[in-house]
Amino acid sequence: MKNELYQPYRGTRDLYPKDYAKQQYMFDVWRKVCLRFGFEEYLAPLVEKRALYTAKQASGEEVSQKELYWFTDQGDREIAIRPEMTPSVSRMIGARIQSLPKPQRWFSIANFMRYERPQKGRIREFWQLNADTFGVSSVEADAEIVELSIEIMREFGADHSMFKIYINNREWFLWWLTTIVGVSENIQAITRIIDNIKKSSDRENEEKLHEVGLLKDQIEKIMGLNGKVLSDFEDYMSKSKGLSDLKALYDKIVDKGLGEYVKVDFSLVRGFDYYTGNVFEQYDLSGENSRSMFGGGRYDKLVGLYAGVDVPAVGFAPGDVPMGLFLDSWNLIPNLSVGPQALVTVFNERTIQYAQKAVDTLRGHEIRTEMYLFDGENVGDQITYASKKAIPFVIIAGPDEMTKQVVMLKNMVTGTQKAVTFIDLPKEVLKG
Amino acid sequence: MKNELYQPYRGTRDLYPKDYAKQQYMFDVWRKVCLRFGFEEYLAPLVEKRALYTAKQASGEEVSQKELYWFTDQGDREIAIRPEMTPSVSRMIGARIQSLPKPQRWFSIANFMRYERPQKGRIREFWQLNADTFGVSSVEADAEIVELSIEIMREFGADHSMFKIYINNREWFLWWLTTIVGVSENIQAITRIIDNIKKSSDRENEEKLHEVGLLKDQIEKIMGLNGKVLSDFEDYMSKSKGLSDLKALYDKIVDKGLGEYVKVDFSLVRGFDYYTGNVFEQYDLSGENSRSMFGGGRYDKLVGLYAGVDVPAVGFAPGDVPMGLFLDSWNLIPNLSVGPQALVTVFNERTIQYAQKAVDTLRGHEIRTEMYLFDGENVGDQITYASKKAIPFVIIAGPDEMTKQVVMLKNMVTGTQKAVTFIDLPKEVLKG
Repeated sequence: MKNELYQPYRGTRDLYPKDYAKQQYMFDVWRKVCLRFGFEEYLAPLVEKRALYTAKQASGEEVSQKELYWFTDQGDREIAIRPEMTPSVSRMIGARIQSLPKPQRWFSIANFMRYERPQKGRIREFWQLNADTFGVSSVEADAEIVELSIEIMREFGADHSMFKIYINNREWFLWWLTTIVGVSENIQAITRIIDNIKKSSDRENEEKLHEVGLLKDQIEKIMGLNGKVLSDFEDYMSKSKGLSDLKALYDKIVDKGLGEYVKVDFSLVRGFDYYTGNVFEQYDLSGENSRSMFGGGRYDKLVGLYAGVDVPAVGFAPGDVPMGLFLDSWNLIPNLSVGPQALVTVFNERTIQYAQKAVDTLRGHEIRTEMYLFDGENVGDQITYASKKAIPFVIIAGPDEMTKQVVMLKNMVTGTQKAVTFIDLPKEVLKG
Repeated sequence: MKNELYQPYRGTRDLYPKDYAKQQYMFDVWRKVCLRFGFEEYLAPLVEKRALYTAKQASGEEVSQKELYWFTDQGDREIAIRPEMTPSVSRMIGARIQSLPKPQRWFSIANFMRYERPQKGRIREFWQLNADTFGVSSVEADAEIVELSIEIMREFGADHSMFKIYINNREWFLWWLTTIVGVSENIQAITRIIDNIKKSSDRENEEKLHEVGLLKDQIEKIMGLNGKVLSDFEDYMSKSKGLSDLKALYDKIVDKGLGEYVKVDFSLVRGFDYYTGNVFEQYDLSGENSRSMFGGGRYDKLVGLYAGVDVPAVGFAPGDVPMGLFLDSWNLIPNLSVGPQALVTVFNERTIQYAQKAVDTLRGHEIRTEMYLFDGENVGDQITYASKKAIPFVIIAGPDEMTKQVVMLKNMVTGTQKAVTFIDLPKEVLKG
């Protein structure tokens, strides 16, 4: 067997127990906060008919066809590994739209694949939380989704000095671009330049906007977007529902006491034709990760592509890779203990049932307990083994202890040991 | 959009919240018991180089090439969606074999795909728990794996009247077949017939054995296997390590107090050339599911195919589909509550912050709380909504309540309601 077979496929990861503990911690926090908000967990298949993505593609969206892992199965069906959850969940909602009461608040934690060049924060197989509310078009649902995204960060121990949420509204943006700036052509190309405006210098952005045919005063208006605040557009509030929705979202977030986490950013557009209303993105303020960590927003037309009938929807989808980078940059991953908390040694074949009793007692209290796989080794060797594996407690249950109906509990950190009864054993280990 | 797009790809499942709750319950039990035994969780990539499975195929194993979902990526690499975990985990162990202390007890819960004809208990995308111990060749490890598999069933509430574990040893089986029965040809074909002996009538089995060239007395010996017990083979105990390993396994399980769950079955062979020593399979005793639920055993040569050096290993892998059928047949799935436990109503825009305080109080105690997404509806309509969604508690936090600094807690099951303070609110909901 050649050494190259040791390596996982490019852009995927082997998660050894220590790596997986971090992943599991992240998933646990995601799940806990979503449940707390009354969201219900679902799961969709790993593969879907390819048509599910080409149908969506027709409307323009974030995942391009060339990023799709698709192939033909033995029954000649074109199928694809899911690159995102929205088409699947929209299909599921669509199939039961008549019988489901509204709103439906749903979340899932699942893996996805995209054929991309692996780089910092982007790999080919990744995990995402998807949290969406279906069936409600009011801004209340948008505000709740933003609140949920903030609560997840706070549950990790992050505060407003560590991340910021930028919000905007796509409907307002397009109204402003066409009506106020007077753009009538190349809207998609211009949108894309604006969405990336922070990644380039002013001069470069001006050049790009000039190249797509904009006039000097149009370019000035666009370049001035960045410094604008809500009150600068007061006059348009009654003319653009998008702008008043944006203000309503901001006000509701402030009402929830979360104003310090949020800032309006008029140059935020997010993707192409996917979103219809309020959109938002979360940024790491550490300076280590410049790209947005994740985003979300309202997409009222997308479910309709699958359901046949429009279903208003709003959601967001943080990924495990950028969120892992954020938690690392702020040192927010706790010390995760993954190995056994206790090792029970075995003296000889005759004491094995007594040792088993100690094991069962500890496991009965959900203490992660390893029974030494005895093959004649002496207790000293077994203690050395516990030390090498950094197991904090060793329990000796030999003939002397059996006579006295106790076990010897050895604290491997302090080096002390004492005799304890079976009744006291779990709490002695748990108090650490 | 055509209706057919509502359907998931053949052999895969849409897990709506109620379906997923059952899945999650199963995963939670698997995870809890594995952790309790000191096993550590890992995860491998969703796809692997196809060579990983063809290399394994060379040794003969359970998943055939035609069941593999494989395709060529855009970089012209042949990759496959994992059909099982063993090659991946063997690769991971192999890559770090020098630095890992032994034993390594590992588990994972992951999804897999096999191109099969969907039928009861078998679909194309399924989930499996994989639990394995690497680096120990003594029967202690085998006994622990069987114990773990029993503890999982007991954690679900199953007892010895509901399932049975049949054990055998492949090394002994092959020794007996070649040395005692005197078979020297067609061993694989004969093994396969014996492994399926319970699925056909005696006459059919005798015919099949006759067709592969066995003589009358050879066939008689094989047909008599089923009624044999360990003591019938006493004389061979010193000649076959496999048989003495089987006896040691049985004795150790009895020592653990788990004898009533286990029975020796000399006709159990399990797969083809995969296993090297003790093997076992769990059967549902309800009569509803005749196929084995899951199995496992010792495979000391397999990791070596990837690692370059032999690493003894023993493990088992229950799947979510057969285990779900077992739990259904014995009615062991508890009543899983997936929706919100409480709905907080909103009286008007001015009381919204007061309502939010009730929401935050409940969520602070991990009570799954839905805040009504207010768009002008009156409280009566909101209570009707809670009733339709079967939410057990409704909290009214209107102007009257605000004045008195209480909330009205309505029990939707009994219909009673009472005023409670914020301090008492969580415990009133939790006591149900």
